[in-house]
Amino acid sequence: MDTENSVNHEPDMDGRDIENDQLMDCKETWTAESYTQPLLSKRVNTTSQIAIVGANVCPIESLDYEIVENELFKQDWRSRKKVQIFQYVILKWAFALCIGLFTGLVGIFNNIAVENISGFKLLVTTDLMTDKKYFKAFAVYAGCNVGLAAAAGALCAYIAPAAAGSGIPEVKAYLNGVDAYSILAPGTLFVKIFGSVLGVSAGFVVGKEGPMVHTGACIASLLGQGGSRKYHLTWRWLRYFKNDRDRRDLITCGAAAGVAAAFRAPVGGVLFALEEAASWWRSALLWRTFFTTAVVAIVLRAFMQLCSSGSCGLFGEGGLIMYDVSAATVTYSSSDILAVLLLGIIGGIFGSFYNYLVDKVLRVYSIINERGAAFKILLVVTIALLTSCCSYGLPWFAQCIPCPADSSVSCPNTDVSGNYKSFQCPSGYYNDLASLFLNTNDDAIRNLMSTSTSKEFHISTLFIFFTAVFCLGIITYGIAIPSGLFIPVILAGAGYGRLVGRLFESISKLDTGLFALLGAASFLGGTMRMTVSLCVILLELTNDLLLLPLVMLVLLISKSVADNFNKGVYDQIMKLKGFPYMEAHAEPYMRQLVALDVVSGPLITFSGVEKVETILHALRTTGHNGFPVIDNPPFSDAPELCGVVLRSHLLVLLKGKFFSKDKILGGEEILQRFAAFDFAKAGSGKGIKVDDLDIEEEEMDMYIDLHPITNTSPYTVVETMSLAKAAILFRQLGLRHMCVVPKSQGRPPIVGILTRHDFMPEHVLGLYPHIKPHK
Amino acid sequence: MDTENSVNHEPDMDGRDIENDQLMDCKETWTAESYTQPLLSKRVNTTSQIAIVGANVCPIESLDYEIVENELFKQDWRSRKKVQIFQYVILKWAFALCIGLFTGLVGIFNNIAVENISGFKLLVTTDLMTDKKYFKAFAVYAGCNVGLAAAAGALCAYIAPAAAGSGIPEVKAYLNGVDAYSILAPGTLFVKIFGSVLGVSAGFVVGKEGPMVHTGACIASLLGQGGSRKYHLTWRWLRYFKNDRDRRDLITCGAAAGVAAAFRAPVGGVLFALEEAASWWRSALLWRTFFTTAVVAIVLRAFMQLCSSGSCGLFGEGGLIMYDVSAATVTYSSSDILAVLLLGIIGGIFGSFYNYLVDKVLRVYSIINERGAAFKILLVVTIALLTSCCSYGLPWFAQCIPCPADSSVSCPNTDVSGNYKSFQCPSGYYNDLASLFLNTNDDAIRNLMSTSTSKEFHISTLFIFFTAVFCLGIITYGIAIPSGLFIPVILAGAGYGRLVGRLFESISKLDTGLFALLGAASFLGGTMRMTVSLCVILLELTNDLLLLPLVMLVLLISKSVADNFNKGVYDQIMKLKGFPYMEAHAEPYMRQLVALDVVSGPLITFSGVEKVETILHALRTTGHNGFPVIDNPPFSDAPELCGVVLRSHLLVLLKGKFFSKDKILGGEEILQRFAAFDFAKAGSGKGIKVDDLDIEEEEMDMYIDLHPITNTSPYTVVETMSLAKAAILFRQLGLRHMCVVPKSQGRPPIVGILTRHDFMPEHVLGLYPHIKPHK
Repeated sequence: MDTENSVNHEPDMDGRDIENDQLMDCKETWTAESYTQPLLSKRVNTTSQIAIVGANVCPIESLDYEIVENELFKQDWRSRKKVQIFQYVILKWAFALCIGLFTGLVGIFNNIAVENISGFKLLVTTDLMTDKKYFKAFAVYAGCNVGLAAAAGALCAYIAPAAAGSGIPEVKAYLNGVDAYSILAPGTLFVKIFGSVLGVSAGFVVGKEGPMVHTGACIASLLGQGGSRKYHLTWRWLRYFKNDRDRRDLITCGAAAGVAAAFRAPVGGVLFALEEAASWWRSALLWRTFFTTAVVAIVLRAFMQLCSSGSCGLFGEGGLIMYDVSAATVTYSSSDILAVLLLGIIGGIFGSFYNYLVDKVLRVYSIINERGAAFKILLVVTIALLTSCCSYGLPWFAQCIPCPADSSVSCPNTDVSGNYKSFQCPSGYYNDLASLFLNTNDDAIRNLMSTSTSKEFHISTLFIFFTAVFCLGIITYGIAIPSGLFIPVILAGAGYGRLVGRLFESISKLDTGLFALLGAASFLGGTMRMTVSLCVILLELTNDLLLLPLVMLVLLISKSVADNFNKGVYDQIMKLKGFPYMEAHAEPYMRQLVALDVVSGPLITFSGVEKVETILHALRTTGHNGFPVIDNPPFSDAPELCGVVLRSHLLVLLKGKFFSKDKILGGEEILQRFAAFDFAKAGSGKGIKVDDLDIEEEEMDMYIDLHPITNTSPYTVVETMSLAKAAILFRQLGLRHMCVVPKSQGRPPIVGILTRHDFMPEHVLGLYPHIKPHK
Repeated sequence: MDTENSVNHEPDMDGRDIENDQLMDCKETWTAESYTQPLLSKRVNTTSQIAIVGANVCPIESLDYEIVENELFKQDWRSRKKVQIFQYVILKWAFALCIGLFTGLVGIFNNIAVENISGFKLLVTTDLMTDKKYFKAFAVYAGCNVGLAAAAGALCAYIAPAAAGSGIPEVKAYLNGVDAYSILAPGTLFVKIFGSVLGVSAGFVVGKEGPMVHTGACIASLLGQGGSRKYHLTWRWLRYFKNDRDRRDLITCGAAAGVAAAFRAPVGGVLFALEEAASWWRSALLWRTFFTTAVVAIVLRAFMQLCSSGSCGLFGEGGLIMYDVSAATVTYSSSDILAVLLLGIIGGIFGSFYNYLVDKVLRVYSIINERGAAFKILLVVTIALLTSCCSYGLPWFAQCIPCPADSSVSCPNTDVSGNYKSFQCPSGYYNDLASLFLNTNDDAIRNLMSTSTSKEFHISTLFIFFTAVFCLGIITYGIAIPSGLFIPVILAGAGYGRLVGRLFESISKLDTGLFALLGAASFLGGTMRMTVSLCVILLELTNDLLLLPLVMLVLLISKSVADNFNKGVYDQIMKLKGFPYMEAHAEPYMRQLVALDVVSGPLITFSGVEKVETILHALRTTGHNGFPVIDNPPFSDAPELCGVVLRSHLLVLLKGKFFSKDKILGGEEILQRFAAFDFAKAGSGKGIKVDDLDIEEEEMDMYIDLHPITNTSPYTVVETMSLAKAAILFRQLGLRHMCVVPKSQGRPPIVGILTRHDFMPEHVLGLYPHIKPHK
């Protein structure tokens, strides 16, 4: 790509034609730049993503979920035999099976690794504490944490910056049609898996749930790309999956499998994919997703059975999080409902406040992360040290509590997990704050949600824990490690809920463990803003259906309250990263505008039979991904819109060099020489680049027939169509390009092309600053 | 409507302009005719629904989910104040609350009534049996059943024929955009509620679940119509809900509330609405639906608490079905999995066979029902008698079994419900077949799913019960009573499952109660073909999450197996009723055709300023609901498509009589005199009719300006657009009319209008018989 391109203000987004060395640059600064992108965008006056590629920001590419119905496709469609359709269906289900299998296995690996690493760390620390070697214990504890954290940070900073963070916003954006660079690459998968294990083991207040979703999506994407063309491992059957539509379906299954593996919640996984992740949905996909999560559930169950015999090291019963509160009898009266209402309202406020702070912290961190890999790792280490100090230091403020006489578990407990940690206390006593801090996050949640132990944690303990975890959670997200948001939010919410439970003890009959669960629900509702999926996930986690009405109530209230303040945390992060996410509804102000109003930039069109030089020039000097093709006399009576041709298809066609000296139709030959598969979409960054073409001087003046690769059924809107309706059309059908055609006759057959970017509020309101956004 | 209309072969569907006396005709023959409709359609060469209106078949109307963006709408939109938007949002939630509340109350009423009526009936019968007055017992039992059945049948036949059957297919069709006549009318609601109570109490093998879904939808529709214009009870705020879009959302909530009330499964209700009922979905609606079902859950819980003190008569613990199998420990090995696989495969085969037989029986019944109300009632009474004979007669074939020594419940049991029915047996013995037959359906299911009682039912008993219930279920659906399909299928499936459990007893460790549950799942999967929603409903019913993997497996297998044979039962019924249901995907053969290929019938267009006579003539002689408006010189340079105007809007405008002598623009005056609300869609059958207009002779030659009511943003496709893509556009955006515009210039600006009917396979394949449907 030459320098001309960096000042290209076209509305289309593109990243295909970026050279490899620039991509390397991107890779290193991705996390940093991505956060600053919107700021940059504003600087260049909200023109376009492509405008900032020159500024060394990684490209965001649109995905194309429309079926390109060109001659080649139709030829392929006609020749498709029944056996091939059968193969396709079998493959789809085989993919679903594999995605479930691999995601389940990764989930198992993740859990076993985390339980063993952090279990070992905690065992050594506890042993040293028992011997009263307090400083040595801290040194070992903090040393382990910092070491693990540094390793996770290094993986992230040097190998795959895209693996940092939750990954859910990226997957959500992908399923909406926005492909961020290298977000589903093999390197990202690798770092996501190992970085997550190291990060969680390092004692950070982070979860492995978001990363599991991202992992599932990566696995699905890699399976779909199937083998490698480089090593001649491509499988002929897989050609049907080499398009954005089928990849999208696979990744939806992957995201669902991720949640299912993280929470052991197969139904919750399906609902998560449906409610939060996916932008398009159909009944057939629901079913396939359900199958994937069922496979995950079976894999997990099989391994749990295998591990129950003790063959997985320190991974035992408590391995996969599962907070069984079904022991508690659920009875509640109207006063309990009032307490729960209050819990929901305050939880909603806290949740939205959490989002607000996360947003602010992310902006600060992006400035630090921008400076390079070393700074990233430094930040990770700093936070690791801070977390270690909190976890080890704060329990000293708690008093030793005598063990309850009727406890069914050993007290004080010297095992890895357990309710009653001895810490510095003498025999027969336990430190309640240490029982929360010096545990894995999963065990801390389990302790908070444990039922029939209402007096176990002091009110002051719960307050200290809640405050610390709330703050740690906020400052941890955004550092260069894979970090999920579910666990920090559940942890803080459970602490808050149990605290409220203690405060309402006198007037409420509900168990404090149930209060902790409801508190977690209120925080989740306040930050994530999901409803049905969270509800089902919580039910599957806690194995108690009788709680359903209460959990629903809390989620509804906290979401309603929080929605008044800001958007959900994933939406916020997407916005911060500059993803042009299309909402399902049209904005109110769009009804005041028509499609023509937002068409911008010079329109570049091709003739049905076009000169090679013209095409090459257009490809080199613009970032457009779709070009309208217009049939002119003598091929038609008057100029008429033939369709849209894609950049990637043009590149393949040009490489084939079926040029002719004269301006004649040469489609037949092209149809014979090419198959639809030759134009299949390659994995990201793998397609032909403009500079791969080797066109000689005399070929420049020759002609090529574009008809065989022209999508003759592009979706069109009339220029006077209301922008709101055009946006709905664009979004519902998952388009990448939409042609705007003139209303009156006697004008050129196309007046512009609309892309995702043209519907973004920043773009529209930038063009029409006098419009009130909410009217 | 004059007689000309009955031979109208227009592609549009309409029923608006039918006169009242004709509607009365319709009302009486609705059920009968509706089944014969497809046969008739074929006879008239697959032209159109309207073609058979003359043949006394009830009309099916399309719904219009598109926002009509005309001048009036824009004026209203601009003037809409913040407070009004706020009112709208508040109202939406208030509606959701009310729908949940009322549906919950109806659910409670339904359960209490059924439990009391059939409880009383069974008590009397049992008492007579104890006194050995066997013939008198049968007379009372059969007499009660026949009486109740006749009452239900009479309600259905005379008051609201539309209330017969499940109602789920109708709701599903409505949410897809097909409005069957009087399907959501107050009379239908009334009959649905009371007919269902009577029918279930009469001992039929029918459920109250489908009717509950329909009831929920009716409640939602009536609330949305809000009051009555006739009695001046309309509430100004409600005007925002007088359109198909908002009604659709309300009815989606209603359908979910119905399932939630029927099964006490709030999450299952949401998923049912999402997976089976609704054709369009968005995240915001998910949330509102969730709220509705949460309200239902809370109402049910409150009443259960109230009734637990015994204040609801015979309605006790067993009132709302809830088969608690959580007592059984769920452990299974690989041999169990094999048994479950087999169960799923055979269940799938049985399920599809069930669908096949239901279809055949419905066709036979439609011929009987067609003959009039008396025949309908006669059929109902016959089936009631047959059911009574089976229930009372078959237990005589069973042997008396000694009561188990360790039973925790009394045996033999003389209560209303209970596991061990004495029937003719001496003290200390029980009749196992009577325990299944002489019970309510809910109790029979509970007995079949009871755990730790593996020897309770003989293998022969289970075989007889399964066979009888399978056959009774098939011959019962289709008679003129509200009849759900869930319970018959669950009943047969549980019997089958328990039978399999007994057969595999020696090699399987799974409890026979769990086998019954899995059998029910396999039958449900085989007939209904839902997955996630059924899974969640079953889990919520049985309160055991540990069964999840097995239930998922069975559902997946049985659905996969059954899908090879035929379609789901609701799809089948919809097809039989002749609803033009649009599938979410395009059929393969549609890729070989373009939009122009299916355009049929003469196109009637209006000028922007049109003569009154022309409009009136078009309204009188066609059944079209949408007319393209074309601007001609002098209002534009060349003829151009201005938009589409709706029949209902034209009628309102004509009634206003803003005519002018000359062909001039008079839109300003119309905009001042009319508000958007005046054009709001009335409840079905309530709008202005053509014959309500009182146009005088001199007014016929005057002109009217159509611009203010013309939707200037209709969705258009170019004539060469592939039919598959046009169908996707039509379906995804919920359109009623789609304009087909010419590709080349110099031709009239519109070549045709496509409606739902034009995409139906019968229509397309009728036009192109040489096309292979699956290619």
